[in-house]
Amino acid sequence: MKITPDGSTTAARLAKLRGIMESRHLNGIVLSSYQNVSYFGRTHMITQISLPDRLAFIIVPRDGSPALLVCAIETRQVKAQTDITDVLDYVEFAEEPAATLARVLQDRGLGRGAIGIDARRLPYASAKSLGERLPGADLVPVDDEVERVQAIKDEYEISVLETAARATLEAGEEAANELPSGSTERDYSTSVFLKLLQRGGSPAFVVFASGPRTMQGHPESLDQTLVNGALWRIDFGARFEEVIYSDLARTGVVGEPSREQEATLNALRATQDAGFGAMEPGRRASDVFTAVKDEFKRQGLPFSMPHVGHGLGIGLHEYPMLEPGNDAVLEEGMVLNVEPLAFIEARQEAYHTEDLAEVTASGVRLLTPPADRLLRIRA
Amino acid sequence: MKITPDGSTTAARLAKLRGIMESRHLNGIVLSSYQNVSYFGRTHMITQISLPDRLAFIIVPRDGSPALLVCAIETRQVKAQTDITDVLDYVEFAEEPAATLARVLQDRGLGRGAIGIDARRLPYASAKSLGERLPGADLVPVDDEVERVQAIKDEYEISVLETAARATLEAGEEAANELPSGSTERDYSTSVFLKLLQRGGSPAFVVFASGPRTMQGHPESLDQTLVNGALWRIDFGARFEEVIYSDLARTGVVGEPSREQEATLNALRATQDAGFGAMEPGRRASDVFTAVKDEFKRQGLPFSMPHVGHGLGIGLHEYPMLEPGNDAVLEEGMVLNVEPLAFIEARQEAYHTEDLAEVTASGVRLLTPPADRLLRIRA
Repeated sequence: MKITPDGSTTAARLAKLRGIMESRHLNGIVLSSYQNVSYFGRTHMITQISLPDRLAFIIVPRDGSPALLVCAIETRQVKAQTDITDVLDYVEFAEEPAATLARVLQDRGLGRGAIGIDARRLPYASAKSLGERLPGADLVPVDDEVERVQAIKDEYEISVLETAARATLEAGEEAANELPSGSTERDYSTSVFLKLLQRGGSPAFVVFASGPRTMQGHPESLDQTLVNGALWRIDFGARFEEVIYSDLARTGVVGEPSREQEATLNALRATQDAGFGAMEPGRRASDVFTAVKDEFKRQGLPFSMPHVGHGLGIGLHEYPMLEPGNDAVLEEGMVLNVEPLAFIEARQEAYHTEDLAEVTASGVRLLTPPADRLLRIRA
Repeated sequence: MKITPDGSTTAARLAKLRGIMESRHLNGIVLSSYQNVSYFGRTHMITQISLPDRLAFIIVPRDGSPALLVCAIETRQVKAQTDITDVLDYVEFAEEPAATLARVLQDRGLGRGAIGIDARRLPYASAKSLGERLPGADLVPVDDEVERVQAIKDEYEISVLETAARATLEAGEEAANELPSGSTERDYSTSVFLKLLQRGGSPAFVVFASGPRTMQGHPESLDQTLVNGALWRIDFGARFEEVIYSDLARTGVVGEPSREQEATLNALRATQDAGFGAMEPGRRASDVFTAVKDEFKRQGLPFSMPHVGHGLGIGLHEYPMLEPGNDAVLEEGMVLNVEPLAFIEARQEAYHTEDLAEVTASGVRLLTPPADRLLRIRA
């Protein structure tokens, strides 16, 4: 079984953009986000994350062949990665990327008429410059459509997502099991980073806190000893096979949990199960949200989540977001996280659990086994 | 000596924005980038890097007190970090962040007239929405001015930058010294990640490759054994004290270098010294560029760099970029990297070395000792 992507993968992905151009009557699409350039260009520039001024574009005309436009520093690497033969570049500081882009679009007959863009990612300064240089062009936001066509994963993507998610879970659990008594928050997160690396991941983020700091949104570990009885939570992920994210959350305790702590996790897990139960082809993203929210109520947990999960892939929060206003229909091949998070004010403890699942023809397949109890770190 | 930042730090930073508002005749400034929100708000949300749709803003009126506007998920954390008392939030998906922002601006009398923005960071979709909701407002790009006032570091920032840079250098050198024979590229980068973590860094990026892949822009390590005689290079950094980056590059060899390899590093080091030699108060960013470029020529090295270094802080590439078109005058307290990179086509080897220095009253103080030879990894 050959599932590694080849040239036909790029062609299939680009074909999805042609569908959007036809339905939206666009002459072409120009995309700039890390997620979009990586997905459609089948390339991977980490500077798209770390250096926001170093813009990169994929240019896909309705008629004609696609091109990549990147900073000259990245050209050699991009050529080694992509199947797109036309790799153009700009010299940083010598020319504004949007100026080179305008020239390239004009050269290809895309200087006039409707051009789709990822308006939630393209900087305002670039859009403004492009608009001034191409007064006959109409920049049409197509963020949602472009995100939507990435939501159904192929066999290769699902296999990487599954391997990545399982490796990430293992890293978090093993680090908890092995951590010696008297360790600090930072000892734990360091061990998790290392175990992600040893399993082939490039660590992207490790949110970790214990005690009252679990109530914060995305805290990072401190050089602070883990206290017996304290609740802790971790939300972490890495890139695998260069571009595919893992994203997982677990809650645990230092020492042995109280009955109350274990009961809260069980209640939270019931809300997650309710979410997975609503993940069937034909149901909606908002149905999963409602299922989780209703179960929070039944379990007597306070509910404050704007979304209860999301698609995962090259992006960390991919379409469809499982939020109340999203009527996206779930389809076979979507891969989604369900991640209930409950803030227990009275105890100053936040509980979070997150697992990955694939929407199948008949329902749902879990790619990681959800938590059956609070994790333990030695007191 | 107290150098840890306190409330007066925030006030001093915000005062710099008031200067810009006066000179540019702005009613207020609204900034959205990770760097700007972290610097002026003295807060730190890692989701500003990992989740580009989760916008955050700092709002600074010309008259009146500043406010932060963040996603409600982050509110508790931001309140625990910032000295700004006015922390507002929006509920993700329930309301578009730009819509909440427009309302907040209107409530504060900033709905009309000139408002400064970071146009290279604010997404086009948000700027468009803001413009439509506030037709009387004029969005004025102030990216450069806002970057400029962050360039002069205070005693605390310089102390963190120095500690971070030294810890990073130690991590890279120690990992090279300790790596057993027969290791892979990935073994080395994993060891570097771990050593960064052990020194208090949160790893941000580790670019590493050996052999012909050194010619790529920002390659990552592979599960590939390091071959005797192969050249390798590393360009890596981490966040220290939550928000301050390190960024350093070194070149090395597996086994013992050839005379030619060592000579190329020496030539490259001469170009770096030329750059440091030009780093004096009163000289220009472009002078450092020219000094490095001219020395490349004298040394017979091929020159293809769009810039030869940059400021460093909460941003990875901060103002001033050491590029030919930048006539920024260097001032005491600026902290800059000089990082010559030479691509030797005939040998398919790229040499890179990067160190950090502070502009002092009389010239330059190196914060890391530049490489005096190629690093070694056991063959």
